[in-house]
Amino acid sequence: MERRINVDYSSDLFENAELNLSVDCVIFTIKEDSLRVLLTKIVPDSDWMLPGGFIKKDEEADLAANRILLLRTGLSDIYLQQFKIFSDPGRFSFNLLNIDELKDKSCFPDRVISIGYFALLNFESLRITGGLLKEDTIWADVEKMPELAFDHHDIVMDAREALKKELFFRPIAYNLLPEKFTMPELQKLYEIILDRTLERSSFQKRMLKWDIYERLEERKEGVAHKRPYLYRFHPEKYHDALKKGLRFGI
Amino acid sequence: MERRINVDYSSDLFENAELNLSVDCVIFTIKEDSLRVLLTKIVPDSDWMLPGGFIKKDEEADLAANRILLLRTGLSDIYLQQFKIFSDPGRFSFNLLNIDELKDKSCFPDRVISIGYFALLNFESLRITGGLLKEDTIWADVEKMPELAFDHHDIVMDAREALKKELFFRPIAYNLLPEKFTMPELQKLYEIILDRTLERSSFQKRMLKWDIYERLEERKEGVAHKRPYLYRFHPEKYHDALKKGLRFGI
Repeated sequence: MERRINVDYSSDLFENAELNLSVDCVIFTIKEDSLRVLLTKIVPDSDWMLPGGFIKKDEEADLAANRILLLRTGLSDIYLQQFKIFSDPGRFSFNLLNIDELKDKSCFPDRVISIGYFALLNFESLRITGGLLKEDTIWADVEKMPELAFDHHDIVMDAREALKKELFFRPIAYNLLPEKFTMPELQKLYEIILDRTLERSSFQKRMLKWDIYERLEERKEGVAHKRPYLYRFHPEKYHDALKKGLRFGI
Repeated sequence: MERRINVDYSSDLFENAELNLSVDCVIFTIKEDSLRVLLTKIVPDSDWMLPGGFIKKDEEADLAANRILLLRTGLSDIYLQQFKIFSDPGRFSFNLLNIDELKDKSCFPDRVISIGYFALLNFESLRITGGLLKEDTIWADVEKMPELAFDHHDIVMDAREALKKELFFRPIAYNLLPEKFTMPELQKLYEIILDRTLERSSFQKRMLKWDIYERLEERKEGVAHKRPYLYRFHPEKYHDALKKGLRFGI
């Protein structure tokens, strides 16, 4: 926490920015059966941190989150979801930044409130192109993250809780699955995100009750013994559920 | 939206405040079988609005929400839950305020981002004591609200969606029920908040599956025909569910 981070003040980061308001993006994916989070470095010797930045004075927060994610990582067209704000007065200090071309130090506020966003992406279809800042990026296992700057460890943990919650409201696993998938594949996905083992038959009952999956006549090929049925999302029912949220059988 | 609101600039509202950051509190209760929201007026001729105010420069947002609610309405010891931020650059303007003792107009930012909080309170145990500002307050039916200032109508609607969602995660109906209650009473509560009719037997099955209610040997007195069983919250299981969230049978 005490290591200073070199920042180029002339960068777009500070231009027309509300310096007491930032966004931080927690981008999850599933890789090698574990939940991963995207971490970046502003400069090679800094701590790992979440891609983030300041909101512009005339900018809506969701737009800011998308702009910053694109700028910092090259990722675009992502559905980012606001989940919490982080406002502890001691969470961040401009004193932790070595800002070279500092024209007027008095313009920096004492604290920065950050708006947390999360997203869940399919690793296979991802392409981190490297943003304008040409930063290092890694996909860290959320259970084994390196030390993170500021309060970013807490932000990741809170994002994970928000993601667990969201799993029961909107079928956000959609983007993580191939077009046709089996119930065991879907269950595995839920188990990784929820970090617990689920009971097979009640999981299937719950999923089917949501009435957003369609069972196909085909079965999964290449599986040794009992070949499980393939499912896909029912397009209309899926979009309806995305809009209204899933209902829990009541 | 175009009517100006008179504000006393010497009030505590502006002292040491982050003028681009406010909180707005959506306080729900159930009264006469409808969902109500607490509205206030800063001065008698203003539009109705949510109790809100600016965050102090050294203040955590949750503390700010509680402080402001106490100041504006006299309500205290309330569990307020952050649910969304409102950041449309056109949502609010200081030009809509007639600020009398304006020392330095340049200190006002172009826009204010507001952090929305909601709470659900038991009407019977409520006592709006009248805060320091001695404001008017009403409990408006969310379906028949008067015109609200700024974007407060949208904030109420979004808070209602957040409340519906929360109903399935934490047993927040707790504070709205007497110590012993019947399943029909619990169902009525859910129906009012969700704004839809629920099917009796699947509702009861769902509630009991959460395993936070305890059926008593007593039955409800004073009911004409079939006297329904009384239930109460199981203290340990309830607190466990509050911490971990409700599980959906998977």
